[in-house]
Amino acid sequence: MSAEPLLSQLIESLRCLPGVGPKTAQRMALHLLERNREGGLQLASVLTDAMQNIGRCEACRDLTELGLCTICSNPRRDQSLLCVVESPVDVLAIEQATAFTGRYFVLLGRLSPLDGIGPAELGLDQLAERFENNAPDELIIATNPTVEGEATSYYLQKMAKRNSIRVTCIAHGVPLGGELEYTDQSTLAHAFGSRLLID
Amino acid sequence: MSAEPLLSQLIESLRCLPGVGPKTAQRMALHLLERNREGGLQLASVLTDAMQNIGRCEACRDLTELGLCTICSNPRRDQSLLCVVESPVDVLAIEQATAFTGRYFVLLGRLSPLDGIGPAELGLDQLAERFENNAPDELIIATNPTVEGEATSYYLQKMAKRNSIRVTCIAHGVPLGGELEYTDQSTLAHAFGSRLLID
Repeated sequence: MSAEPLLSQLIESLRCLPGVGPKTAQRMALHLLERNREGGLQLASVLTDAMQNIGRCEACRDLTELGLCTICSNPRRDQSLLCVVESPVDVLAIEQATAFTGRYFVLLGRLSPLDGIGPAELGLDQLAERFENNAPDELIIATNPTVEGEATSYYLQKMAKRNSIRVTCIAHGVPLGGELEYTDQSTLAHAFGSRLLID
Repeated sequence: MSAEPLLSQLIESLRCLPGVGPKTAQRMALHLLERNREGGLQLASVLTDAMQNIGRCEACRDLTELGLCTICSNPRRDQSLLCVVESPVDVLAIEQATAFTGRYFVLLGRLSPLDGIGPAELGLDQLAERFENNAPDELIIATNPTVEGEATSYYLQKMAKRNSIRVTCIAHGVPLGGELEYTDQSTLAHAFGSRLLID
């Protein structure tokens, strides 16, 4: 048995979660111990299972405990639409918000040469192979509208055009429910520049 | 194997932590899977151990995996000073902030008759027994300065006085580094009413 009391060990271990400082970890540990031991045990079991068994989907690089993720192995998902995102959370966000029925390709990052992240790290060779052998009709680029996301988007556009694949990009502009007054300058400038003809 | 993907199960399980909503749970799950699987496994193991083995100290009711907690079993901690607190986090806070060398008694709650929490639920019969058989010289009351905490404090004062034990209460007033302008009215009124003679 370690010299450290188990409660302190638990508080210390909870701090491996992002955004959890000493006070939050204390509150979490006490909450689980006093009110929800069942939940704590359940979390521990799922956590072990997930850390040991979740790998990447062979086709789309999304996180999954299976060889092929549930989306890639679903024959009803349209092979001709391929949406490229940066991270598995983006897949979750799009699945929850939209009625998209195509497939995904998850970069697990964005081009960032200074950090040593090039096309190979993002699986773009795997994507290029797919463009050769099993090309989609439309490539939907949904990288984040940051500098690196835009650079990645540009690289993907070039790749798709070499294979004569139609490329689209999700719309960027003033968010719904937002107010022009509180929209940041670059978003507003972009929205103004990309104005659409109402016909 | 459950129909739900393991990643979704993990996100769902993380929501048993207090203050963790769907977005935070997603971020936590992704962080552990992509950057800190070791930490996740370590957390799972400590979590299982803690949920199964942490109980209450026989003497002070604090949370511990031992029969007697490390403070109660430490012969160098002064038996004649007994500090009563509401929760195990208060013990941690006092240990971190002060040089207190006495022992604790943890109520694990506060008197709240409407919620069915009376003296028995707070272990006050156990405390009364201690006052009879092994009375401390001084009882330091460190309940929270809320209405229920004050009611609990008053009850403890009565108990101690019946056994002729000296009772003290931690000081309440304007916090150090605080500004009078931004101190709430009741704290300021209390601090004014409890002013001390400078000699």
